Amino acid sequence: MPFSYLDHLECSRCAKVYDADSLHGLCACGSPLLARYDLERLTGSFKLEQLASRESGLWRYHELLPVSSPEGVVSLGERITPLLPLPRMGQHLDLRSLHMKDEGLLPTGTFKARGATVGVSRARQLGAERLAMPTNGNAGAAWALYAAKAGLEMLIVMPLAAPPIPRAECAISGARLFLVDGLIGDAGALVAQAVAEQGYTDISTLKEPYRLEGKKTMGLELFEQLGWRVPDVILYPTGGGVGLIGIFKALQECQQLGWIGPKLPRLVAVQATGCAPIVKAWEARAETSEAWKDASTIAFGITVPKALGDFLILRALYATGGCAVAVADSEILEAQARLASLEGSFICPEGAACFAAAAQLRQSGWLNPTDEVVVFNTGLGVLYPDTVTVQAPVLRQGDAIPAS
Amino acid sequence: MPFSYLDHLECSRCAKVYDADSLHGLCACGSPLLARYDLERLTGSFKLEQLASRESGLWRYHELLPVSSPEGVVSLGERITPLLPLPRMGQHLDLRSLHMKDEGLLPTGTFKARGATVGVSRARQLGAERLAMPTNGNAGAAWALYAAKAGLEMLIVMPLAAPPIPRAECAISGARLFLVDGLIGDAGALVAQAVAEQGYTDISTLKEPYRLEGKKTMGLELFEQLGWRVPDVILYPTGGGVGLIGIFKALQECQQLGWIGPKLPRLVAVQATGCAPIVKAWEARAETSEAWKDASTIAFGITVPKALGDFLILRALYATGGCAVAVADSEILEAQARLASLEGSFICPEGAACFAAAAQLRQSGWLNPTDEVVVFNTGLGVLYPDTVTVQAPVLRQGDAIPAS
Repeated sequence: MPFSYLDHLECSRCAKVYDADSLHGLCACGSPLLARYDLERLTGSFKLEQLASRESGLWRYHELLPVSSPEGVVSLGERITPLLPLPRMGQHLDLRSLHMKDEGLLPTGTFKARGATVGVSRARQLGAERLAMPTNGNAGAAWALYAAKAGLEMLIVMPLAAPPIPRAECAISGARLFLVDGLIGDAGALVAQAVAEQGYTDISTLKEPYRLEGKKTMGLELFEQLGWRVPDVILYPTGGGVGLIGIFKALQECQQLGWIGPKLPRLVAVQATGCAPIVKAWEARAETSEAWKDASTIAFGITVPKALGDFLILRALYATGGCAVAVADSEILEAQARLASLEGSFICPEGAACFAAAAQLRQSGWLNPTDEVVVFNTGLGVLYPDTVTVQAPVLRQGDAIPAS
Repeated sequence: MPFSYLDHLECSRCAKVYDADSLHGLCACGSPLLARYDLERLTGSFKLEQLASRESGLWRYHELLPVSSPEGVVSLGERITPLLPLPRMGQHLDLRSLHMKDEGLLPTGTFKARGATVGVSRARQLGAERLAMPTNGNAGAAWALYAAKAGLEMLIVMPLAAPPIPRAECAISGARLFLVDGLIGDAGALVAQAVAEQGYTDISTLKEPYRLEGKKTMGLELFEQLGWRVPDVILYPTGGGVGLIGIFKALQECQQLGWIGPKLPRLVAVQATGCAPIVKAWEARAETSEAWKDASTIAFGITVPKALGDFLILRALYATGGCAVAVADSEILEAQARLASLEGSFICPEGAACFAAAAQLRQSGWLNPTDEVVVFNTGLGVLYPDTVTVQAPVLRQGDAIPAS
């Protein structure tokens, strides 16, 4: 049995086919390429029970990943992320079945590790030696560290206003790091120029097909954790949208393989009111989004004014009967603090946005109290310590703790 | 079969026995109590193969943990931490078999989660409602978040000079947080007073017996990952020493159970030259340590001038033919950067100290090139972003990435 059933690449818009054995960027039509597998052959030769004896973590799904041999895998020890029951937060939100898939427990502290372990592995396998990407921070940190593990060179460009901790991660990995006085699109323009003139391989969001395959494993893991079925609703913080597109791709592949039934979870794209192009497009039932002007939110990871894969995000929302919701920064911070005090998880603002969205959707009646709801937290709260206001009295020797 | 085989508590110094069904602090003689299990009965009724079907993570060893029922477990989704091969760092250090057990992949980002999940669970089970502890940061953060999950009240006192991120974790959990202009001993004195006067349960290092049981699982996991055998050498960053004492306790219990053979790994306690009381005691072949004056190191987590369990640490070193090593802050930072650029792991200074120690021990010949060496990294590097110097040029629109 082959390690991977990768068969070819296919354009997400015009369906043009490319071979999967060499490096490809976008389709000639300018749209992202998607990895396609020989699912028919896999159905005949693989049984789900075979998974039971495999190690925990996303590489257990290697048949549905693009790396052709175990030796090609660049790993920092990814494990399955927990699906945590949140009974007290559920009670607060009037949701009887609320779970959080906590992606902060991956190497580098965010879900970006999934894209990086798969993307870096495949890039190296196909002969790339110098990678370049624009980033809002966490993706750059993840790719820089996985690239270091793989012995590849990495160029990272991130907005000056991005949170500072990912800078440290990029710097210590040995990556070339530049800051740009602008947003992620400005970083992308600088990267595109370096790719054109200096021979870097462009690994920007959806400009190569394999990061998405890593993100897809969020869906695979979730469905396996639920006993190969889907919840009623999945809330996901949405910037570039690769996570949501990946979960939808997992859904489609699992259905084609017969691993799950025909039921679809309603997918919810969560954005901030300061940058909500997908919400605006969804409300207009549009096929694509328009660039958001003056984008700004405390949830920096989802500050993406115009996503290359916007039409894929919107397709996933329409196909599953989902929706798109925008929440205010104040709601994000309130949800972040409430979750920490009720459930002990200190999550990132992007993840917290999903709990704020759940509150809105419950109030509007879009969510029922009995819906089985899964929220994805995409990263650690400690990556954004400035989101927390600390009030701590300073004591000196001879002082005492005041009675509470 | 019982969920736990906990039988009684025993003083680590005078061997006095206490019942395990109520809350106890130190023994009347002032020494830590150790949890003892009915290992004979466990040997008769349990086979290692039974572990295979259990979920990944430390609670799989529940027979050797103090919580008496699954309902008593307070979890944030702990998973087995990876044992990462480090071929490039090994080549640099001239060590042919070098692995790192990466404890940064636990909830709250440090090994402290092990002590917190077990300690908080057991404290709640025994009826504690208000917990108090002094901390250098990470333990406080872990206990504060697990206590929030458990619905318990928490009082945390930490040095003013401790790294700032754990403050945010404590604050957002809803804990009462105080800073003290002093070291961890000063924080401990304030906690002791609050315990005496305000009815808190003291969960300071080794002042209750169950945190150690959580730490013990580092050993259990490691031995299981190696196929129920031990490596030649284990390096561990040592402040209060509970991690090292826990690994040694795991060794003893696994040997009594026949899960591993008689071979002992040489345990190495790693400290910083700015706070090395255990190293000084080990060099003098002493049974206890003396308080270190003017303690200071960048590896703040191991700034413990006088550990309550010093005699237990030293016992473990002597019993296994191990040693204690001090490394300079400059060596710590060099090792941290080298590991990140060679192996893609951004680790905390305490973990990095162990790689600096490995370099010393290899140079001195204490480590052989063929020794199977396991280093414990106790936490995430991102919790200490200030240990990294970031040099990143700022570009503006119209600029270009310079050729490399």
